[in-house]
Amino acid sequence: MFRKIIITLFVVSVLLTGTSVAQNATEDLTQYVNPLIGTQEMGHVFPGACVPFGMVQLSPDTDTIPYDVDGKYTGTVYRYCAGYQYNDPTIVGFSHTHFSGTGHSDLGDFLIMPTVGDLKLNPGTADQPESGYRSRFSHETEKAVPGYYNVKLEDYDIDAELTAAEHVGFHQYTFPESDDAHIILDLTHGIYNYDGKVLWSQVWVQNDTLVTGYRITSGWARTNYLYFAMVFSKPIENYGCKNEHSQVYKGFWRKFDQENNFPEMGGRKLKTHFDFKTKEGEKIKVKFAISAVSTEGALKNLKAEVPHFDFKKVKQEARYKWQNELEKITIDASPEKKVTFYTSLYHTFINPVEYMDVDGQYRGIDHQIHKADGFVNYSIFSLWDTYRALHPLLTLIQPKRTSDMINSMLAHYDQSVLGMLPVWSHFGNENWCMIGYHAVPVIADAWINGIRGFDPQHALDACISSATNKYYGNITDYMKLGYVPYDVNATGSSMTLEYAYDDWTIAQLAKAIGKEDIAKTYEERSQNWKKLFNDKTGFIGAKDSEGNWKTPFDPLQTHDEGFIEGNSWNYSLYVPQDITGLIKKMGGNDRFSNHLDSLFSMYLPDEYFAETEDITRDGLIGCYVHGNEPSHHVAYMYNWAGKPWKTQERIHQIVNTMYLNKPDGLCGNDDCGQMSAWYIFSSLGFYPVCPGSGQYAIGSPSVQEATIKLPENKELVVKVENYAEKNIYVQSVKINGKELTDYALEHSDLLGGGELVFKMGKKPKK
Amino acid sequence: MFRKIIITLFVVSVLLTGTSVAQNATEDLTQYVNPLIGTQEMGHVFPGACVPFGMVQLSPDTDTIPYDVDGKYTGTVYRYCAGYQYNDPTIVGFSHTHFSGTGHSDLGDFLIMPTVGDLKLNPGTADQPESGYRSRFSHETEKAVPGYYNVKLEDYDIDAELTAAEHVGFHQYTFPESDDAHIILDLTHGIYNYDGKVLWSQVWVQNDTLVTGYRITSGWARTNYLYFAMVFSKPIENYGCKNEHSQVYKGFWRKFDQENNFPEMGGRKLKTHFDFKTKEGEKIKVKFAISAVSTEGALKNLKAEVPHFDFKKVKQEARYKWQNELEKITIDASPEKKVTFYTSLYHTFINPVEYMDVDGQYRGIDHQIHKADGFVNYSIFSLWDTYRALHPLLTLIQPKRTSDMINSMLAHYDQSVLGMLPVWSHFGNENWCMIGYHAVPVIADAWINGIRGFDPQHALDACISSATNKYYGNITDYMKLGYVPYDVNATGSSMTLEYAYDDWTIAQLAKAIGKEDIAKTYEERSQNWKKLFNDKTGFIGAKDSEGNWKTPFDPLQTHDEGFIEGNSWNYSLYVPQDITGLIKKMGGNDRFSNHLDSLFSMYLPDEYFAETEDITRDGLIGCYVHGNEPSHHVAYMYNWAGKPWKTQERIHQIVNTMYLNKPDGLCGNDDCGQMSAWYIFSSLGFYPVCPGSGQYAIGSPSVQEATIKLPENKELVVKVENYAEKNIYVQSVKINGKELTDYALEHSDLLGGGELVFKMGKKPKK
Repeated sequence: MFRKIIITLFVVSVLLTGTSVAQNATEDLTQYVNPLIGTQEMGHVFPGACVPFGMVQLSPDTDTIPYDVDGKYTGTVYRYCAGYQYNDPTIVGFSHTHFSGTGHSDLGDFLIMPTVGDLKLNPGTADQPESGYRSRFSHETEKAVPGYYNVKLEDYDIDAELTAAEHVGFHQYTFPESDDAHIILDLTHGIYNYDGKVLWSQVWVQNDTLVTGYRITSGWARTNYLYFAMVFSKPIENYGCKNEHSQVYKGFWRKFDQENNFPEMGGRKLKTHFDFKTKEGEKIKVKFAISAVSTEGALKNLKAEVPHFDFKKVKQEARYKWQNELEKITIDASPEKKVTFYTSLYHTFINPVEYMDVDGQYRGIDHQIHKADGFVNYSIFSLWDTYRALHPLLTLIQPKRTSDMINSMLAHYDQSVLGMLPVWSHFGNENWCMIGYHAVPVIADAWINGIRGFDPQHALDACISSATNKYYGNITDYMKLGYVPYDVNATGSSMTLEYAYDDWTIAQLAKAIGKEDIAKTYEERSQNWKKLFNDKTGFIGAKDSEGNWKTPFDPLQTHDEGFIEGNSWNYSLYVPQDITGLIKKMGGNDRFSNHLDSLFSMYLPDEYFAETEDITRDGLIGCYVHGNEPSHHVAYMYNWAGKPWKTQERIHQIVNTMYLNKPDGLCGNDDCGQMSAWYIFSSLGFYPVCPGSGQYAIGSPSVQEATIKLPENKELVVKVENYAEKNIYVQSVKINGKELTDYALEHSDLLGGGELVFKMGKKPKK
Repeated sequence: MFRKIIITLFVVSVLLTGTSVAQNATEDLTQYVNPLIGTQEMGHVFPGACVPFGMVQLSPDTDTIPYDVDGKYTGTVYRYCAGYQYNDPTIVGFSHTHFSGTGHSDLGDFLIMPTVGDLKLNPGTADQPESGYRSRFSHETEKAVPGYYNVKLEDYDIDAELTAAEHVGFHQYTFPESDDAHIILDLTHGIYNYDGKVLWSQVWVQNDTLVTGYRITSGWARTNYLYFAMVFSKPIENYGCKNEHSQVYKGFWRKFDQENNFPEMGGRKLKTHFDFKTKEGEKIKVKFAISAVSTEGALKNLKAEVPHFDFKKVKQEARYKWQNELEKITIDASPEKKVTFYTSLYHTFINPVEYMDVDGQYRGIDHQIHKADGFVNYSIFSLWDTYRALHPLLTLIQPKRTSDMINSMLAHYDQSVLGMLPVWSHFGNENWCMIGYHAVPVIADAWINGIRGFDPQHALDACISSATNKYYGNITDYMKLGYVPYDVNATGSSMTLEYAYDDWTIAQLAKAIGKEDIAKTYEERSQNWKKLFNDKTGFIGAKDSEGNWKTPFDPLQTHDEGFIEGNSWNYSLYVPQDITGLIKKMGGNDRFSNHLDSLFSMYLPDEYFAETEDITRDGLIGCYVHGNEPSHHVAYMYNWAGKPWKTQERIHQIVNTMYLNKPDGLCGNDDCGQMSAWYIFSSLGFYPVCPGSGQYAIGSPSVQEATIKLPENKELVVKVENYAEKNIYVQSVKINGKELTDYALEHSDLLGGGELVFKMGKKPKK
């Protein structure tokens, strides 16, 4: 009841006061979110409409086609991970599923495009938009806010508005007068499409306003089953399809004219259209619900979430849902800071998504239908990225969702014939991207930081099964030799370092639940990083199966030196579980901090940069690569070397230069919120350098004050005394009055709420 | 309890006395069934193992591939409707799903083949069996009895035995000594395969004896989802696969060596192998359960039906299940007659199949999972064939199954976006083969003959929706013009005749439930045959949309004269609902019976025969085509023309010449039991000339005595007095003492059981 009142108050305040509400508990935080940040170049986020963690992420696709008409690869797959690039001149249409910020692409399911005039069922090209159904558009008519997207489709004079619920995309198209208006549903469209990706697609016109169907695709998700139910606000006049797949056996379906007003359409290259007559300014609304289970599931979702045609209501509800989540952290900061802060927070609440129907049914990685028993099933786990800061952030401010995500991971493990926790999983599939078994630190960190609602023994079993897996990631070699040799895997050194860290978190989890033997085993395994530390060079190197160091060895090179998405200069610092041990190996505090200084100040020559993935030049500071994840903890390492002011300088620098309020304001892939989660933590003045340790490292806060909502209605207030632009240096930190002496903040100390007080100054405290 | 005792007694009697048990209630009737009858040429039945109406029909495939290596169509699709041709020299393997006697092909799912020696994963060719995994075989080592099939695979010295439960194929292979024994599961194999038929296939090796998986195919069934669970009696030593599909996107699955001992295999051209070491004479057993729902469904089916590895037990149970069904009719006749009779009865109990899991779940034609509520869901409805005699036979002796089949048809209708009852449906799909809406007469006949357990109003609605359907079969033209013009559909005249009959049955159903208005409408529609009766020629002709007769018109020609699977000579007699009216149109009794005489005595020139489908020359008597269904009632029509002795002669002739105890003993496709059902009825002395009329026409019995088990433990005893080879003429017929005067037997008179007594003589009773 209380909650209901809050909702009403908020809606009223938004309606009455627009974006000018005063800062209080119900300030409209969504006004600070700019979904267009990161839509140009490397950010790979989408500008469209979604609700927090919603399965439907309805967004314009400006291009997606990796192959030209001659079947030649055009290299655009990577550009279109989120379907949208800010500089593109045309919109192909609006599809319902997207990744947020990834470095690989898929999804883009169920593209809808409204048009008028001659019916065109191919998308055409950006050069010649009139060659297909796509349309020109301008950023001048484009508006993107949380849960709502609006643009004018210039070629058709159609005003397109999008909003969303968890499983429902809601389209509102304002047409000109036309006897020839169309809404196209192109079932061949997809992100990272290739000829043959659609294994099957099916459409049933149930009546003159309801259409159901599904498609099965084989892409990055090797077997993606997605069903839909689409409802029009106005009866369909005529409808039809083209099925351009020539190979498929037609059987006695050839008796029918399946292309015109025939209610059952099936095939592998199906493009459907629904035709209307419209008056000037007439709105046609389309509700589009999805399910991984069945069309019946999609209908259930639709009925539960959007049982009406009130577009404004769904738009307002979406905005409220965002407000409700964004209120998890309220800050006192400049409006500019609020934009980057709340846009970042927005990005941390997009992936993973609730991958289950309202009745709890979802499709497992065993391709079977399961019912989530007592949890919400989530999907899209980009774990190599997100174990670092996104999941620790969710553990802090989204404890229920974290518990649900862990139960989702354990269900994945139970369904895995390989006995693996998720590595990089999405939409009922394991796609095996990147390295490590980083579900393990997520689980361990969550348990250690007080998340409950899952069986820790089951979780430990799953972690051990993943960490001893005979199929995956050369773990057999790792267990035999203590490292993964570069001659069996070209990224073996990265694997070794990450396995050693993951192993350390297994030890922490085991210790926490009293399994000392297991803890000991994995504590030992966590020292494996030492096997690849080359005392002669002072870098982590690469060894072959015989134990010989790789020579020659280039610590600046990202490829073929044993690493992935990072060179030895960066990766040599990846020992978060034993930074003290690493510093010792590297020659003590001074030599170590000199090493860090060099990293931040050296110039990465162009030939090396060309080989660095997923980032822009803006994502570099010297050879430090913020646009990729392996370095995300690095700026905090000065703390361990006795030079915390250097951490404070670098954090301040990164926060202020690498998160900007412009379309290309992200210097690398947002990676399902990891880049943004780094920003949130670092803005608040602390960061989980080593998830599983129960500790955060102190950085340099860039907000004046912040209130973080914690479990059980507790609140942590972060106060920054002597807050000023130049006061970037921490003079003291107190948690509930107790002064921190080692720049380490215990999670257990803040979990009960209270005050975290930074005292800042313009000079380093040495 | 009583039933249990009977089972035990039967099993004991089979064990102790083999096939020599005396004739009594527990005589072993399975001894008379020869599954090899009809496996050569046109019969299109399979010789393998199944239980009555079982979903698994596990049988050897001797070839199936319609395209040669250059992709050229070889024309063998039709030959291999059941996967097996008696004269073939090799066996490709044993697959789990088959049609019985159809004229189109599909299925052949999940081919298993045991081999020894070098691993070969392609089937090879019949010319050069050593080029692949197939093996030579000989009929000398081949044994086929109900529920059991046995053959020696000569190339490998492997003795192969097959038996089955409803959802489980049970293989027992006796190997020679080998370090290199294999069991191949070829997921690319299928009947009517084409490149691209397999949309997706998936295999999970769950442990060293359990393998699960599925495939989705797009063939005659446009979207066929079939799941499996396979259990070996011996742990797998090694396993692997080849996936020859080059197009599919591989993603990060390429990290794994998926071809060797990798437990998750997926792709579009997947061939898997499981390797063993065997001792001389060692048996490896394979239990293979299927489900249209999920691998979990397959496992449930396996657990419920075959929770052990006792091959002999399953084989005996299968035989008992057959005995139990065959006992529905016991006859006194010569052993030769018993062979053709019980083989025919066997053929009538194969299709349709129980298409649902043990928990009631099945896949509907809307591709969704449904739970059958209070009925068993059946599939494989070859209705153009089977509405004539198979369903009337099942209505008589399988009332519960008939009720279930009708509920299955109504569920199909409920799921049909077109609002159609099944036309020719199989495995969760409508394949739209042939013409008519012949679910209608099945439903009407069943209701009129006392079958209950379904909602007659719902059934009537479904019949009317089908009969007024705007999408299907030019019904719109039919409703407008009273006939289907040949210029809009080349088979319009056949359609018109069959629609008119189907309409008549709607009228009967409507009348029976008190819907007189509807009855009147459809009574009128049932006279539409007259619109195509050409008084000038005395034949049913073809009209164009303007009402002009097609000229020239050749009543001997099967193609392009308005008909399908029959010429005008045969089809002109297709007015079962108004034979009296037809006789009048054709000039009275004498001219009509002369017409029939001509039909049976004329010679069909070779050029016409060449165009006649689905039959052998043996299937002709003059121009009468017994191998196709439109004539199945024709021999009985003499009764209406006052010359019943001519019916008796022709029935006697057909019964004795067209059902022979040899591999090519069927003169045409058995068509899911329709040909065989004709034989059963005709052998018993009566036949449902017009299902829905509640009447049978009297023919000439060819058994000496028969006992037919009826609902509610009633029995009808057919007694034939003066039974002798030459006494083919009926002198009198009495039902429970009441003499029949018009050669018409009321179903209501026999439903209560009692005696049907034929008195025979060597001379016609004129």
